[in-house]
Amino acid sequence: MSNDKILVFGHKNPDTDTICSALIYADLKSKLGGNVEAVRLGEINEETAFALNYFNAEKPRLVNTVSDEVAEVALVDHNEFQQSVDDIENVKIIEVVDHHRIANFQTKEPLHFRVEPVGCTTTILRKMYQENNVEITKQFAGLMVSAIISDSLLFKSPTCTEEDVQAAKSLAEIAEINLDEYGLEMLKAGTKLENRSAEE
Amino acid sequence: MSNDKILVFGHKNPDTDTICSALIYADLKSKLGGNVEAVRLGEINEETAFALNYFNAEKPRLVNTVSDEVAEVALVDHNEFQQSVDDIENVKIIEVVDHHRIANFQTKEPLHFRVEPVGCTTTILRKMYQENNVEITKQFAGLMVSAIISDSLLFKSPTCTEEDVQAAKSLAEIAEINLDEYGLEMLKAGTKLENRSAEE
Ligand SMILES: [Mn+2]
Ligand SMILES: [Mn+2]
Ligand SMILES: [Mn+2]
Ligand SMILES: [Mn+2]
Repeated sequence: MSNDKILVFGHKNPDTDTICSALIYADLKSKLGGNVEAVRLGEINEETAFALNYFNAEKPRLVNTVSDEVAEVALVDHNEFQQSVDDIENVKIIEVVDHHRIANFQTKEPLHFRVEPVGCTTTILRKMYQENNVEITKQFAGLMVSAIISDSLLFKSPTCTEEDVQAAKSLAEIAEINLDEYGLEMLKAGTKLENRSAEE
Repeated sequence: MSNDKILVFGHKNPDTDTICSALIYADLKSKLGGNVEAVRLGEINEETAFALNYFNAEKPRLVNTVSDEVAEVALVDHNEFQQSVDDIENVKIIEVVDHHRIANFQTKEPLHFRVEPVGCTTTILRKMYQENNVEITKQFAGLMVSAIISDSLLFKSPTCTEEDVQAAKSLAEIAEINLDEYGLEMLKAGTKLENRSAEE
């Protein structure tokens, strides 16, 4: 049991936003001096694997429980306990960054809880880098924009906001990608899995 | 029923933070272009009356329900439904700014939800003025610092953080008050009520 280490993770059945947000928030918190590791609660899908591979990022470590490792956790891209790790009620949640409705969530003590009605968690995380004057590297800009493309289906989802679009455009420049080309390629990589699964 | 107006309010049995936060957040949102009115869910206590009087501020309008007036509301200084207006489940909560634990709260849709583990809601609201580049007037600085003094019992409460102390010091300068002198006077005004109530 590590007393100062924090695990950060997204929801079960992870999507690209959940995986990238965990990696990104762990990066930001580490750069701000925290002892933080990103973990995941399930297998990576093909779309996410494409994005991680494209930007040379390692997937987070797979865990089934967290209370055997740490006392404190941070949640990204979800807040409802049934979408979270099985032993969520045995740890202290110190932070949440999310863009979903709030439900089935409670704490005994105050915490940092930041939910905004945007299309993607990484749109909020990008602002947090700016607020903390932490530079966004090419690699992490790539992960951020991949998550926005995924959650917004390349800006076609009704949950996509103008803030997501502007964030994606700015991040695509840092990541040195063409939004449409990279976006279609990434979304196609995700579709392949569905095809394969149907065939298998 | 007003379709674009938003009511903002704190908890039942209002304290100085709840009343001042409602006035302050209504001010900020109005200055950002919103049609917002601060209301309250109960009688003002003597301490709050002292602060409002000192800084020439009107108390918010008293309401018992909100869904007969508006479709959307913003909550400050609380999130638990049982501390909120009786018909809270009949309106859409579009924003929450609070410093308490999260419990007994849920929404159907995403919203702006900002909770930080500081000693007072106005400590967070002060940051929101800064983030939005809105100037804090002498009057509103006075209401903010009054709320911090109240929630922190002039910095003696264990919930008081360094951020609250720094915010109060900076706000006291804008409000042109001596923190200790004004603070003790305000807290004493609150104690009078308890004395009177005991005698009555
Ligand atoms: Mn997700
Ligand atoms: Mn998401
Ligand atoms: Mn209060
Ligand atoms: Mn308070």
